[in-house]
Amino acid sequence: MRYVSLSRLALLCLPMMQTIASAAPREHFVLEELGSFYVRGRSVALEGLPARASLGAKSGSEAARVDPNGEYETHQVYVQYAKLARPRHRTPFVLWHGGSLTGATYESTPDGRAGWQTLFLRAGRSVYIVDTFQTGRAPWARYPEINPDEPLFRTKAFLWETFRIGPAGSYRRRETFSGTRFPSEVFDQLAMQAVPRFVLAADPVLDALTRSLERIGPSVIVAHSASGPIAFRVALSRPDLVKALIAVEPSGGIDIGEDDAEVLRGIPHLFIWGDNLVTESWRSLHQSARRYADELQTGKGRAVTWIDLPARGVRGNSHLLMMDDNSAEVADLIAGWARKHAPD
Amino acid sequence: MRYVSLSRLALLCLPMMQTIASAAPREHFVLEELGSFYVRGRSVALEGLPARASLGAKSGSEAARVDPNGEYETHQVYVQYAKLARPRHRTPFVLWHGGSLTGATYESTPDGRAGWQTLFLRAGRSVYIVDTFQTGRAPWARYPEINPDEPLFRTKAFLWETFRIGPAGSYRRRETFSGTRFPSEVFDQLAMQAVPRFVLAADPVLDALTRSLERIGPSVIVAHSASGPIAFRVALSRPDLVKALIAVEPSGGIDIGEDDAEVLRGIPHLFIWGDNLVTESWRSLHQSARRYADELQTGKGRAVTWIDLPARGVRGNSHLLMMDDNSAEVADLIAGWARKHAPD
Repeated sequence: MRYVSLSRLALLCLPMMQTIASAAPREHFVLEELGSFYVRGRSVALEGLPARASLGAKSGSEAARVDPNGEYETHQVYVQYAKLARPRHRTPFVLWHGGSLTGATYESTPDGRAGWQTLFLRAGRSVYIVDTFQTGRAPWARYPEINPDEPLFRTKAFLWETFRIGPAGSYRRRETFSGTRFPSEVFDQLAMQAVPRFVLAADPVLDALTRSLERIGPSVIVAHSASGPIAFRVALSRPDLVKALIAVEPSGGIDIGEDDAEVLRGIPHLFIWGDNLVTESWRSLHQSARRYADELQTGKGRAVTWIDLPARGVRGNSHLLMMDDNSAEVADLIAGWARKHAPD
Repeated sequence: MRYVSLSRLALLCLPMMQTIASAAPREHFVLEELGSFYVRGRSVALEGLPARASLGAKSGSEAARVDPNGEYETHQVYVQYAKLARPRHRTPFVLWHGGSLTGATYESTPDGRAGWQTLFLRAGRSVYIVDTFQTGRAPWARYPEINPDEPLFRTKAFLWETFRIGPAGSYRRRETFSGTRFPSEVFDQLAMQAVPRFVLAADPVLDALTRSLERIGPSVIVAHSASGPIAFRVALSRPDLVKALIAVEPSGGIDIGEDDAEVLRGIPHLFIWGDNLVTESWRSLHQSARRYADELQTGKGRAVTWIDLPARGVRGNSHLLMMDDNSAEVADLIAGWARKHAPD
């Protein structure tokens, strides 16, 4: 009779255990479809513009056709989706990016960890990512003929300092806030995402985003930065389409009357803020959002959850909570809050 | 004793059969991760430009910071991936879009059918979609400071006629080629994808795309239109990274010497063309690609497969084979060809 030591038994079993584990690891998810669609903005017609000469020698034969006069689609919104075959929660997550950014915000982190898109899919939600504001796959339009003015171009110093990786004036030496959670050693991966930003009138954006929700159905909206106030306005005008609203460092609140507040109180709101809100600009946005949240909390409102991460002892988060080193924990927090406050 | 008719038996069994089918339908696929990364182009520094005034009342507090002088990342390439948990074929598909378009080309068709991205995933390949040429999530750069000139803006008439939905002059009445396979009733979904097109020097594009393949590993490349000649050049310079090359209506071939041809003969090529190549421009591109293919077929070259769909009795395809009504059949053809000519 032969005996096998426990440690040897473990070694013998390991390949089998790994096989079992790899048969259905927790991190895999089953999709029915990946895809995208556009939600129309409007059609415009241009005339009287001079024709352009050439596309270059290689495609010279196209040259004669380069006449900018004619019809264009503009102000459309791009919606990219990953539909789970069997979502654990029926209500999908819809992710709206901030200014100067695109839906890439929610894909992999700059240092290559799984992004919120993948994490929310693993949490059992179908995920829709939107490119809006004429960025990313929502094409930009000519100026001054369609957009009145040229866009704002954001330098790497602007991104570093405004998104609170380091304090004002810190980019030159690549100094960070003490204990920053942003993966600053791969900052250029963020800088490569940054897009020119047009100043768009709010109404066409609101309209296209609302129609995207009509197509998707009632959703949990995750809105970052400049998308925050837009999400509040969409929730106000179409509360039937917003099951819950997660405002990740929103660019302020919106002004609402008591009737508005009554409507918005039917929609659970979660606010999350990072660290180092030290500039006047950030303090002002934080206070503006706080006033809005306070309006919702008076009377018989449903849950408003306000989280300042530093108040919970979590220090060092930047404006980009979906990219910081604790992005998975923040995703868990969001997914857990949505399970509780927006049950199917 | 009770008897059950065959038809009744079928009815009784149907729910059970459906349950079994929905447990693992053929069209579902298991992903390990969705994500993206950027491949660096270069960093540029601008100086001496005037500061911009304001972002508008709502975000007025940011105004003071809008100074365009400083560093930017430019000419980067965006790579979006869907990694299968258990790919049936180890070599992934890498999809490159054409001019005036983005990676959205390969997602859902304009009429909402599954796009080539989903179809190739269902065929057992991990899929990488690239945004290049400063379009989509590969941000565009200022002109004239970084790009020498403004981009070309493409009208809806240009898209309709150049992509061969209808003949020259047909857009005004929305006339199509007889029996067009493009879903012309939802043409605006295509028009909403169209992006301004910069004239870029080829070398930085080649360089960034090559480095994207270094990161992905040896791949089967699907190159549409303007990406075709770029794919031929990448294959020539780095044959180790290109297991096979599928040129979907490429914008011509490239000029090669006998040494070049010797290298390229090691890489199986598939060319696919649609219908109605009636303009001088399209005939010229088709002939240019044919000359390139002929160079590869002389001597002891490996398989070059040249498919003119009309010669096989398939009429009515536009330039956008991934959007036409037989896009799934063309995807099957491509996937089957790759299984045969680029086995793992």
